[in-house]
Amino acid sequence: MVTLDFKKGNGLVPAVVQDYRSGRVLMVAYMNGQAWERTLQTGEAHYWSRSRGELWHKGATSGNIQIVKEIFADCDSDAILLKVEQVGGAACHLGYESCFHKSVDSNGAMTIIDERVFDPAKVYGK
Amino acid sequence: MVTLDFKKGNGLVPAVVQDYRSGRVLMVAYMNGQAWERTLQTGEAHYWSRSRGELWHKGATSGNIQIVKEIFADCDSDAILLKVEQVGGAACHLGYESCFHKSVDSNGAMTIIDERVFDPAKVYGK
Repeated sequence: MVTLDFKKGNGLVPAVVQDYRSGRVLMVAYMNGQAWERTLQTGEAHYWSRSRGELWHKGATSGNIQIVKEIFADCDSDAILLKVEQVGGAACHLGYESCFHKSVDSNGAMTIIDERVFDPAKVYGK
Repeated sequence: MVTLDFKKGNGLVPAVVQDYRSGRVLMVAYMNGQAWERTLQTGEAHYWSRSRGELWHKGATSGNIQIVKEIFADCDSDAILLKVEQVGGAACHLGYESCFHKSVDSNGAMTIIDERVFDPAKVYGK
């Protein structure tokens, strides 16, 4: 049984989320012990929302859940890599496939490189 | 100019490091403002070592530097993705190509899936 080191991150470990087919990095989120256990138990990604301060079943609102295909722990067991099937084709709450849709040049200037997959106002709006 | 949000992580943002050719995720490290600036200025990955409490020019000891090919910021500008050329073919201080060399099954059991690229005792030993 992998015992993750939650201490270094004050109770949280970062989870890198990668599309299991394309290898594209979709997002980084955080897990506490409960999120880690739920992810293992259910096969769907669960995180700890730092902004809301609560357990976060990714996709519970949008329907865009992440079906976990493979899990890896790093050398120090203080970071996790999930290879997932991203339901709906978009991991980002702004409607992009990947949260990493801003390219940065060597001067630090930023360019959005993607088109939105969905309109967040329609998915999250009421 | 991208202004990263260092506040949420107490002065640090996580940096996901991906091999620019294979797409394999090699490691997760952390950057403070100084590490971010040095990375942009030099084109070689710099991090903040949480364990040593100092600026860390990756590869300064081992020679296995990371040449930055592309940089991405995420939606909230609180995480970074680097696509790098990993000199020496191994990012992990234990001698593996990737720090994520431990596969985890649904019971939480762990298996090392890689062979070492180098012997850490020879690279770091004295």
